[in-house]
Amino acid sequence: MLFSEPMSDAWERRYGFPAPADLPELRALLNHRSVRNFKAEPVSERVMEALVAAGQSASTSSNLQLWSVVSVQEPERREKIAELCAGQKQVREAAWFLAFLADTHRLAEAARARGLDPAGLDYIEFYTMAVIDAALAAERMVCAAESLGLGVCYIGALRNDPYGVQEFLRLPKGTFGTFGLCIGWPSDEERAAIKPRLRQEAIWFRESYPDQVDVSEYDERMKPSYARRGVEGDWSSHSGRRVDGEHMTGRDRLRAFLEEQGFNHR
Amino acid sequence: MLFSEPMSDAWERRYGFPAPADLPELRALLNHRSVRNFKAEPVSERVMEALVAAGQSASTSSNLQLWSVVSVQEPERREKIAELCAGQKQVREAAWFLAFLADTHRLAEAARARGLDPAGLDYIEFYTMAVIDAALAAERMVCAAESLGLGVCYIGALRNDPYGVQEFLRLPKGTFGTFGLCIGWPSDEERAAIKPRLRQEAIWFRESYPDQVDVSEYDERMKPSYARRGVEGDWSSHSGRRVDGEHMTGRDRLRAFLEEQGFNHR
Repeated sequence: MLFSEPMSDAWERRYGFPAPADLPELRALLNHRSVRNFKAEPVSERVMEALVAAGQSASTSSNLQLWSVVSVQEPERREKIAELCAGQKQVREAAWFLAFLADTHRLAEAARARGLDPAGLDYIEFYTMAVIDAALAAERMVCAAESLGLGVCYIGALRNDPYGVQEFLRLPKGTFGTFGLCIGWPSDEERAAIKPRLRQEAIWFRESYPDQVDVSEYDERMKPSYARRGVEGDWSSHSGRRVDGEHMTGRDRLRAFLEEQGFNHR
Repeated sequence: MLFSEPMSDAWERRYGFPAPADLPELRALLNHRSVRNFKAEPVSERVMEALVAAGQSASTSSNLQLWSVVSVQEPERREKIAELCAGQKQVREAAWFLAFLADTHRLAEAARARGLDPAGLDYIEFYTMAVIDAALAAERMVCAAESLGLGVCYIGALRNDPYGVQEFLRLPKGTFGTFGLCIGWPSDEERAAIKPRLRQEAIWFRESYPDQVDVSEYDERMKPSYARRGVEGDWSSHSGRRVDGEHMTGRDRLRAFLEEQGFNHR
């Protein structure tokens, strides 16, 4: 498999200290990184069917299966969806591009065909459930893809222009393009690194949420990687600017869009 | 590993027809089922640290890491959280119970410590992002657990009493108990079956969303399993009733709760 380091090495890259244990079964799962440079080599329908089967094997709340996926493969259409996703080149170049949908539409239609009124689907509960369903399916699909040596990249920018995506994918009421996913064979030049993360004591709490969460160790550890990218500051300052409400890249329209699609009314 | 069938057998149980291919690497990933009967045998801290590391290895949007996990292990507290989760016995009996949080609080505090105002975090965009982050992390953790032979069960009922959970876990503004996860060794009596799912043509669409989604094949295939549980009807009628707005099990309070916690204001 490409990129794969022993689990204990991957751990050290995540946390900056040696792993307390090495569990070889977890090697691929700890080696995730986002791949943005793909070979111009196809991934077969057969493999994709197996990956979709992995996605469908994930848990789904009450077996409602409130998610769908739309693959965009026609070259002109791929170009267009890449534009809708902030022009990211991996969207253009990956062997497959999948738009993951939160989808209450299929169930709503099925209920109506039985004379039932699916009136509760406009609660934020079902929006939440559908987003969780889509994410669980996607991540199991990603784990499957990576176990075959494929690379992936999630595309949050699918939410930048929700109206444009809705029109382009012909999304009916009750569906929402939640995120995209690129899948393909990593190029030989791909050098994506394992990204450092917060230490476990800053994300895993015992019994209850603590009064204070100390991220200073992480801020220090991340400084060099921001400096390499020419960004001043640390994780706190860099991430804090990202959420100041001035950098919404179109996603400030999401609430209005979701309400028009029938989500989040109550 | 417990429960594991060859990938091609798992495929046939999901879809009701033979697999077009057998990819042995995907065996564990297609074998997922929810385990509700656990042995009274511990899962070590070492293993849990490795599982959390797997969770943290999942993608997180812009590296914001908008999720956390609270483990509830003290026996009296476990009893209490099981009550909050509709009294489900697997919550009481699993070796570990984890409450997954959508968490913008840690980042908000980190931003404020740098003199920044994280004013955008009340957009539904960041609620969505945090729920996705939590779900991606959880599912990679689940894949890791299952690859070690552990069993898991997601607990959506963590959302039944959001105020009770908030008080019990001492959740500050900007956090939300999104779902629970039980992890443990499956009991020798556990006979959870692989659950049939919609055929791929009802969930994976090409280029755009279709005018019609046919679920009649699935309705037929699911009838016997509802009948065995003494439930009349098929997937459409059973699931349609689940979303009629009359069976919200407390989750109709979610929107008010989320707004009080600082989510979904715009």
